[in-house]
Amino acid sequence: MTETTSILIKDPITIADEIKKQSILIVDNKIQEVGTNLENGDAEVVIDASDKIAAPALINTHTHVAMTLLRGVGGDVDLQDWLNNYIWPREANLTDELVYAGSKLAMAEMIKTGTVMFNDMYFNMEQTAKATDEVGMRATLGYGMIDLFDDEKRKQELKEAKKLIDSTHNTADGRIKVAVTPHAPNTCSGELISDAAKLAKDNNVKLHIHVAETKDEVEMIKDQHGMTPFEYLDSLNALSSDMIAAHGVWTTDDEIKTLAQRGVTISHNPSSNMKLASGIAPVAKYLEGGVNVTIGTDGVASNNNLDMFSEMKLTALLQKVDTLDPKVANTKEVFDMATVNAANALGINSGEIKEGKLADIMLIDANVPHMVPMIDVMSNIIYSSLNDVNTVICDGKILLQDKELQTINEAEIMKDVKVAAKEL
Amino acid sequence: MTETTSILIKDPITIADEIKKQSILIVDNKIQEVGTNLENGDAEVVIDASDKIAAPALINTHTHVAMTLLRGVGGDVDLQDWLNNYIWPREANLTDELVYAGSKLAMAEMIKTGTVMFNDMYFNMEQTAKATDEVGMRATLGYGMIDLFDDEKRKQELKEAKKLIDSTHNTADGRIKVAVTPHAPNTCSGELISDAAKLAKDNNVKLHIHVAETKDEVEMIKDQHGMTPFEYLDSLNALSSDMIAAHGVWTTDDEIKTLAQRGVTISHNPSSNMKLASGIAPVAKYLEGGVNVTIGTDGVASNNNLDMFSEMKLTALLQKVDTLDPKVANTKEVFDMATVNAANALGINSGEIKEGKLADIMLIDANVPHMVPMIDVMSNIIYSSLNDVNTVICDGKILLQDKELQTINEAEIMKDVKVAAKEL
Repeated sequence: MTETTSILIKDPITIADEIKKQSILIVDNKIQEVGTNLENGDAEVVIDASDKIAAPALINTHTHVAMTLLRGVGGDVDLQDWLNNYIWPREANLTDELVYAGSKLAMAEMIKTGTVMFNDMYFNMEQTAKATDEVGMRATLGYGMIDLFDDEKRKQELKEAKKLIDSTHNTADGRIKVAVTPHAPNTCSGELISDAAKLAKDNNVKLHIHVAETKDEVEMIKDQHGMTPFEYLDSLNALSSDMIAAHGVWTTDDEIKTLAQRGVTISHNPSSNMKLASGIAPVAKYLEGGVNVTIGTDGVASNNNLDMFSEMKLTALLQKVDTLDPKVANTKEVFDMATVNAANALGINSGEIKEGKLADIMLIDANVPHMVPMIDVMSNIIYSSLNDVNTVICDGKILLQDKELQTINEAEIMKDVKVAAKEL
Repeated sequence: MTETTSILIKDPITIADEIKKQSILIVDNKIQEVGTNLENGDAEVVIDASDKIAAPALINTHTHVAMTLLRGVGGDVDLQDWLNNYIWPREANLTDELVYAGSKLAMAEMIKTGTVMFNDMYFNMEQTAKATDEVGMRATLGYGMIDLFDDEKRKQELKEAKKLIDSTHNTADGRIKVAVTPHAPNTCSGELISDAAKLAKDNNVKLHIHVAETKDEVEMIKDQHGMTPFEYLDSLNALSSDMIAAHGVWTTDDEIKTLAQRGVTISHNPSSNMKLASGIAPVAKYLEGGVNVTIGTDGVASNNNLDMFSEMKLTALLQKVDTLDPKVANTKEVFDMATVNAANALGINSGEIKEGKLADIMLIDANVPHMVPMIDVMSNIIYSSLNDVNTVICDGKILLQDKELQTINEAEIMKDVKVAAKEL
């Protein structure tokens, strides 16, 4: 890791309140100044960014990062077939070593595509924490709880969740947070979800859960409880501004009102919802109803990469075609989903280039054929860019410079994962 | 341009009848041999591709390449607003110099993303032909005819189309073909479309047209002619295996039967149809009905890049979510759309890695984090890859090597386009 206490990013087109050429001074882990007249002064590192765009780095609000190990497993098949015959049998063989390797590969991929923070739910999470700490990213990590309505299992799962909070929350200079993460309303008992919400509240951490991903799930909840999934969660007192609900594909207008009232955040996962044929989330309606929308990639096995630029483009395109209205999900709204909305949801003082914010910044190459001309900067970022992230700074540290990872041995981790994937 | 008469591509994972490690020997402009035991022998250039995938290079079947000049103009607005207030006023200012610059920038972008051939409809096409010849790509080029039901204009347009055939068809060692390209059934008179079909047939060239892109267009044709767009075109004797119809978003089951019977090719443009909120083409039904489907980006102004990998992923994802069936539009079907189906549609002996085929090949980097592990090669190509094209060969000539353009001065063309875009 390049250890520095001050960095001057000189003359990029900066995505701030205004979009214009101005420099950014980082001191320690914060943005100290943004302006047109910053001199090199005492900055220990000066980055010439005159042919680049400086933007807040991206935040992926729904991941299972270690699933990079399962990239390409079971494509183009039905969801239940995919889970039962491809994913779950392999996940049964996971070990600490495999989760560590898979997580680290995911981090290589995320950093190279501009993501500095992710909100993860999976197993062996101490390993993902270890990798996050070493690599220098931010993360909110949760142990994925499933009790399948078994009372003993429920107690064990809650114990595991509490253990992770105690061992890992607020570690790595505060870069790592822990969340409580019950899997979904159709795989967890009502007791587990209530207890999970209480555990999150008591420990002042976030609650991360899958909700209303498929039609089948909604039908199951309605059959069992006579309510839609979010109505059911509301009856368990689980909805609050601490909840990040992944997917939210099949929701009613009434549920959307409730989500806005309770301050719930939706993590929209367009690639995964499309690839698994789950459906199209009503994101335009969420925006209109004042729901906080963010973006996730989901696990690599249903995407099949962790590139948030692709998800941003897809979010914009999918809403336009679904509503037959090209004006919905505009570029600013979509970029906010992947940055400031996510930072707000996860309770991190980042997501914007502004004095006092955490120094989580990416530089995007602007002088490549597919980014020329630059008539509308935000449009080029959302619609035109293709793996153009050149430099990534997280918490004031440089994680990627000139497209080279600074804190990960890329060749080694790829080798490890190739071996690991064969073991699964 | 690297002038060679024989190239050995050594040890890539090759996408051929089987997907496995085997080498490819190119002599002159053809693939001479594909096999596991090829020795360097007399090959003048040997490319070590042991960490790469060799695949047929991509073919973009619907473009307006010079529109790179308008990248980012008028985003997130209604189609008619976009055309009337953003696109058409600027297109009125096009000159030979501008079309040449915009075309060349598009070629830089296309080659870097693995595309070696495109099917274009626009203006000042001699300039696009000149750039294509210099750069070493393949193209089918057409002068975009619009008569707006004016008899004099119709005659002029046909004269322009004929002039382009005479000057440009089968030039550049056969790499450039000309097509007859009436704009659309709602902007061209029936006489123009009939005459265009006849002109194409008499000159043994392709017929390229926009059809059934928007609901409004379909309603207009139904009001005027009492028929759906493809029924109307059939009544004009325009449908044949020489037609490439772009979009085909709003088609009936009866039209799909007719398209299959007449051998019409559909160029599916998912990004553009989504961005302009035109609708979702029934690609799964086309496949089921035996229609030849290919893929296009459309112009940059409605995409906003020319990356065919993004279009392939989007084609697969969009059909799955639209039909709620994850099994439709599988990876092989989608890859064929961007390669062999397109070669067949345009009458080019390429699109496959096979002895005797034209040497149009791309090498894709396989040893990058988001392509690891490589459990399913085709899945990684369609779903995981992100701007990973390393080398491109067209007609036996190397156009891209180690991600560097060999036949285009990239810095110069970007500079020219930045200036040009300001003039529009």
